[in-house]
Parts: sequence; structure tokens; C-alpha cells
Amino acid sequence: MKTIKYPQTSQWPSLCTRPTFDISELESTVKDILDDVRERGNAALLEMGKKFDGVELDALEVNLKEHSFEIDEKLAEAIKIAKKNIETFHLAQKENVLKVETMKGVSCWRKSVAIQNVGLYIPGGSAPLFSTLLMLAIPAKIAGCKNIVVCTPPSSGFGANTPPLEKGAEGDFNRKPSKPVEYLNSVIGWTCQLLGIEKIYLTGGAQAVAAMTFGTASIPKVDKVFGPGNQYVTAAKQLAQNYGVAIDMPAGPSEVLVIADDSAYPEFVAADLLSQAEHGPDSQVILVSDSEKLISEVDAEVQKQVDALPRKGIALKALKNSQSILVKDLNEAVAFSNYYAPEHLIIATENAEELGEQVTIAGSVFLGNWSCESAGDYASGTNHTLPTNGYARNYSGVSLDSFIKKITFQKLTEEGIQNLGPAIEKMAEAEQLQAHKNAVSLRLKEIEKRP
Amino acid sequence: MKTIKYPQTSQWPSLCTRPTFDISELESTVKDILDDVRERGNAALLEMGKKFDGVELDALEVNLKEHSFEIDEKLAEAIKIAKKNIETFHLAQKENVLKVETMKGVSCWRKSVAIQNVGLYIPGGSAPLFSTLLMLAIPAKIAGCKNIVVCTPPSSGFGANTPPLEKGAEGDFNRKPSKPVEYLNSVIGWTCQLLGIEKIYLTGGAQAVAAMTFGTASIPKVDKVFGPGNQYVTAAKQLAQNYGVAIDMPAGPSEVLVIADDSAYPEFVAADLLSQAEHGPDSQVILVSDSEKLISEVDAEVQKQVDALPRKGIALKALKNSQSILVKDLNEAVAFSNYYAPEHLIIATENAEELGEQVTIAGSVFLGNWSCESAGDYASGTNHTLPTNGYARNYSGVSLDSFIKKITFQKLTEEGIQNLGPAIEKMAEAEQLQAHKNAVSLRLKEIEKRP
Repeated sequence: MKTIKYPQTSQWPSLCTRPTFDISELESTVKDILDDVRERGNAALLEMGKKFDGVELDALEVNLKEHSFEIDEKLAEAIKIAKKNIETFHLAQKENVLKVETMKGVSCWRKSVAIQNVGLYIPGGSAPLFSTLLMLAIPAKIAGCKNIVVCTPPSSGFGANTPPLEKGAEGDFNRKPSKPVEYLNSVIGWTCQLLGIEKIYLTGGAQAVAAMTFGTASIPKVDKVFGPGNQYVTAAKQLAQNYGVAIDMPAGPSEVLVIADDSAYPEFVAADLLSQAEHGPDSQVILVSDSEKLISEVDAEVQKQVDALPRKGIALKALKNSQSILVKDLNEAVAFSNYYAPEHLIIATENAEELGEQVTIAGSVFLGNWSCESAGDYASGTNHTLPTNGYARNYSGVSLDSFIKKITFQKLTEEGIQNLGPAIEKMAEAEQLQAHKNAVSLRLKEIEKRP
Repeated sequence: MKTIKYPQTSQWPSLCTRPTFDISELESTVKDILDDVRERGNAALLEMGKKFDGVELDALEVNLKEHSFEIDEKLAEAIKIAKKNIETFHLAQKENVLKVETMKGVSCWRKSVAIQNVGLYIPGGSAPLFSTLLMLAIPAKIAGCKNIVVCTPPSSGFGANTPPLEKGAEGDFNRKPSKPVEYLNSVIGWTCQLLGIEKIYLTGGAQAVAAMTFGTASIPKVDKVFGPGNQYVTAAKQLAQNYGVAIDMPAGPSEVLVIADDSAYPEFVAADLLSQAEHGPDSQVILVSDSEKLISEVDAEVQKQVDALPRKGIALKALKNSQSILVKDLNEAVAFSNYYAPEHLIIATENAEELGEQVTIAGSVFLGNWSCESAGDYASGTNHTLPTNGYARNYSGVSLDSFIKKITFQKLTEEGIQNLGPAIEKMAEAEQLQAHKNAVSLRLKEIEKRP
């Protein structure tokens, strides 16, 4: 990792550049996928499964009630612990209805109601991410969403329910199309059942987003699409918004910024940086410190630890996008972090909680030496679906709020409209909206008429 | 208004069609405006002010500290009442930090922090909408947004600070460019001062959205753009999202659905329908009732009241998009409303509160005979920036939440990582993310090493 010593604030913009791609380059490819799925539905999805995932399926849907999945007992135990913590944290986000009498006879309140139909995209890749399933399905269940649609690419690799070789050599698609359950990762299947998800659809990428946006004969149309994914998924979610669907947030490559001082353990900091770097070649990790000594110790640890990683190649690429920044003090470190707007921020300093108070922009913050990012990625209870690429400036991470709408209600009594009416009349008149005024005047007259 | 009697649910989709336009038709025009403002900044904005608003200005900014505005005393009083109520309701939306110990030694919490830079668009049109200024600036102030940028088109009509005729005949642009304050509506200027807004920029339409998205030499770049507007503004907000800015919600023409039974006052219902219809020719109003008698009485009242409206022409056009629907009972009425997903829902029935409990999709709900939509539009305290065009399915209206991000925090103690660590290790391993596991394993080893 390159070290930048005492940069001027004028250098901050260039230090905060992300290794992002330009979505517009993918726009026409992704638009074609969206159009195709919109027009041909399931047929398009099955064809794309063959083309992009190398799997020929006879259907998209796995009815989970009809199958049972076996997973490692200790993993099952771990997932149950994570589930409990995520539930505890997200349940605490429930809000009670709070009636406010803004004026005598004028009561206003908000009611939280679940978004009825939500779509959760669970990426595949090297290993299907059951942790993302936990992070999205648990708040959806707590919110009370009526239909929870889950899409994930067919998985022929690690953890697939039936090894594909039994079906024929790789690339041999002349054999009979397979049943979807054979290409469902067991841990994903098991976790869906644990969470009470009844159906899952084996389709991935931009086509999965299209399916949930428009609906197909098998896959229900949803109101909001959630979940991370590659550049195609990101571009598809962005475009899908033009068709009436909402999305959790715009996405970008994952990132972490670590603020550390001499009280930090260099090996922990290195491990935290690498746990982000292994996500993808376009990940970015930033170390900010007031200690040149710490920076060089961490650097040495990174070199050492990266060698032992199975995903070494990916991590090394990500480290090329990354840097260490030496600052004059820790206040400047937090100021830089607020400017960078990190998805994950680890503060490994003596006064971590105090510095944490100064944080105004970040997705999720980890305080002290024992709060590693992995804790929040998996099991502490906070959500791991967070704004990247500077979007921490204007978006929150996924929470219970993401799965609900808040509807405002109001009730005015006769006394209420008498108290408030004249003000409304005056304002409506000034905005030249006579009918708005009439709606009040007629009511006031009716009350006056009374004996 | 056309009456549809006892429609089948299969007819519901066609009954719920909105008179919307296709944004994609405007896309290239609006994209050109965005590009032009991005490249040429203020110069482009000043040119467009001349071209679209017919006003040649020497600058865009009004420094409100340098001016004083006089408005009708009773209007000032009314605006102050509205301000107080809106403040009361939005202040009640503040959340306290709630620390949750999900497991012994694992503490998680969320902190609400204001979005630092927000842009408020206040439409002009027949009369500048100071009510929208109240609805956006008050929660922005309560949230604690650092920079609140307000843009509004130069106003040469009703309420302009200096009559344009003093400057030269309409259409005569050879005269010296005018000072912006001469084209600022007095009520808008006065309301800004009341709310503690220091600067306002006189630019409107898609170009205003572009200015706040990219920033210019005068107008600061913001993180999130709020506010209603015409089709160009709507299209610009949609496109602006591709440039890193967030928006409050997608917009569409305004709409109201009224559920009424025989206990309703036909003249009130008619006035409520018309107060929506006068918004624009593309507004939509729907009456749903179990009483044929009420429907025909409301219809007669609408005919009568519309004649006296200054905006009669607009209202009549909107009524062409509108209909009355006769249903078998009030439960069906609410079911239809949930399907329609109205921006505003008025329930003028005997059991209004009970029916209100069944509402799962709506922007804002008004209960009983005395709760007219105008109350919420201006002064009761609820926000009037609401999801239209079916977006009540997946979006909430503007509230304090719209101006903040919630950052999650966590702190694990040594005991915490010992309790949670093994579960994280197991899950990271199953997702083949070895570095994620290492970050935990190294910490657990360090603790074990201790005496």
C-alpha cells in the first residue's frame, strides 16, 4: 500500500477517488436484458441461465417445502446465533405510533406499514452469500412484508445440493434440463427454511432484477428490490427505477477506512484491511493514522498475511487501489473520513468512542480494537447492506426502515377546523388556490349554521 | 365525473391508470440541459432564465440578509401558525439513540445525523409555493442540515417584489439585466427569512436540479434534492440520480381518493375533490362510495362549485381523468384504495377511524368530515410532499427521516468477541472468505495468550 504523508486538504478529492466503473457503459446491454425479460418472461430467464450461468434448468422455482437441506451442525449453530442478534437489533428499530396534537382538535400521527412485496437478490459468485440472505430477509420478516421473493443464481460450485458432474460433463448441455433444487446451494436452502421463506427462484444478474421488476409467469413483481451484486446487477437496479420499482440504494465496490493510532494492534488492522480487500479486485481499503510507525508495521503485516490467503490474487489487486495516509492528528483523521464517506469505518484508537462522536458520514462504525468489521458483516446484529462509493453522504444502510412506509394520518374535530381553518384559508388564497380555501370555508360555514 | 358501478376486481388495474406522461420522451431534452449546466454553470443558468422564464438577471443569488420583504399581516400570522404545527409534528419524529446489547459484550446502536447539504426546489407557476418551502425547510432545519440551498424560478407575476413593468415592457430584454431580488416573490423571501434560510437562487425547472446536482460558481452542489415540479423537473430528478445525488422520491401528478358514505357532506366531498382537481390538468380525483345517492349528490355539487373557481379550466380538464366508483361496501372501498395507492386518502364515513386501520398503502390519510386535505396541504403539521402515481406502495412522504442518515455503530469488548467470534469464524469459512475469519482468529488468539 502506498503511503501519502500529510496531504493538503486540496489533495483530498483525488485521495478519495473510488475504483468505480461507469455504469453507462453497461446501460445498453442491461437495457436489452430488461426488455427481453419484460417481453418473454420465464423463457428469457431460462435461456440466460444457460448462457450466463452454464446451467440448463427445467424451471426457475424451488418450492422449499418440498425439500430438506443438510448443513454442517456448527455452521447451523453459528447461523442461528447471527439470526438471533440480527433480530434483536432490528426488532429494536420498531416504532410506536405517536399521536401529536399540534393544535387543540388537530391530531396527527404516523403509522409504519410494511412494503407489501419485496425482492431480495442474493449474489452467487465464488460462494453464495447466505449472510446477505440473513441481512435482508430478517428485517423483511419483522416488517411484515407479505410477499418476500428471493432470487439467486443457480450454483454449480461450492455447496451445490447435487454435484453437477452426475448430470454430465461441464459444458454438456444436451442432457435433460435439471431440476432447480439440484443447483440450489444447501446453506442458502437451509437458511431460507430457517427464516420462513417458502420459495426461491434460481436466476441471477441483471435478469433477476428484471424479473422482480416486471414479474413473470413464475416470479412475482415486487415493489422494492434489495441486495448487492456485480456491475450488471447494479446497473439493472439503477435502470429498474424507471419502471416504478424502488431500490434499497445504489451500489458500488465494498470499502473500509481504518483510523488507527499507536494503541492499535498492527496485525488486527492488517487483517481488517485484508478482509475488505478480499471482497473483489475493485475493493478499496484506506488506513489513516497519526503514527508513521503504525503505518509501516501494518504494511509489513499486510504483506505477511496476504500470502496465506486463498483469495490472495483478488486482495493484491484491491491493495493497488488502496493507500495509507499519515495525518497530523486524529481529529484530522476523522475529518478525512467524513470527507471520504466510507461504507465501513473502524476506529482503533485509544479514544475510539470520543472520536466516534465526530463521525457525521459513514455506513457503519466499529469502535475499538475488538470490533472487527467481520462482526458486523455476519453476526453482531447490525446490517451489512451499506452505502458504498460515497453514498454514505446521502443514504443510510438497510434497516427495518427500508422495508416499511410511514403513512401520515390526521383527524380534525370541529374545534380543530375552527382553530386552524382561518390560517389555511389565508394561505390557500395567497397561493391562488381557491378550491383549497373553499374546502375549509364550507366546513366553517356549516359549523356556524348550527344552533 | 364518470361513474363506474360495481366494477369487478379484474377492472381495477384499468381504473387505477394515471394520466401520466412518459418521462423518456423528455429524456434527451433534459439530458442536454443537465450537460449544459454541468459544463457552463451560471452562464447556462442565466441564459435559460432568459429563454424559459423571460427574465434577464445579472446574477442568480439573493442574499436574503440584505433585503426586507413586506407581506400581508394576516398571511404572516397564518404562516407562523403553520410553521409551529409543522415544527411540532416533525420534532416528534426525532429518535433517541438506543443502544442494544445483542449479546454480552456486543453493543450496537444507530445514530441519526443530518445529510449535510440539501437542495430544495420550490416551484413557481401561477403562484410561488411558499407552503412547499415550509414543508421542506422546516424538517431540514430540525435535522440540522449544514447547507440548505433553495432554488425557485424568477417570478415576474403575482407577488413579485418589484413589478416588472417598471423595468420595461414584457418581452423587452434589451434593458439592463435586473437584480434577482426584483424577481423574488415577497412571500417566498419573507418565509425564507422566517425559517433562517440565508440564500436563495433564482433558477427553475430542470436547470435548477442540474445546478444543485453538479454545483456552479454560485450554487453549491448538494447531496440530496427535494421538491415537486413539472415534468421537466421530475425527469431531471430521475436523471440526476445517475450523478451521485439522492432525491426525495419520484414524482407524478397530484391525486386524491375520497371514500365516503351517506354520513358525508356532499358539498365537502365535492370541495375536496375540486381542491385536488385545481392543481393541474393532469391531476386525478377518485370518489369511492357504497351509496349511489351520495355519488350523484357529490356530482351535482362538483358541477355547481367548479363554476365559481378561478382555475375552472384546469379543474374541468382534471375531472376528465377522474371517476366515481360505486362499491358494494366500505371494506371493498378500502381494498380498492389500497390497490390504487393514493397520494391523499380522505375517509369521510361514520367509522372513519376503524376503516383507517385497514389502510396499508397511501401517502397521507384524512379521517372524518372535518379533516380536509387542505389542512395537511398547509398547516396541520403533516408534510405535504407525498408519493403520487402509485409510489405510495414503495415510498413514504417526506419527513424528518428524509433529511437524515442513520449510521450504525458497534463496540465489542474482549468478552464480546470471545462470545461471538466462533460463530463469525464458522460463517466466514462457509462463505470462503478467509481474511474475514482471520480478523477474528487473530483477536481470539491474542486474548488466549494473556495470562
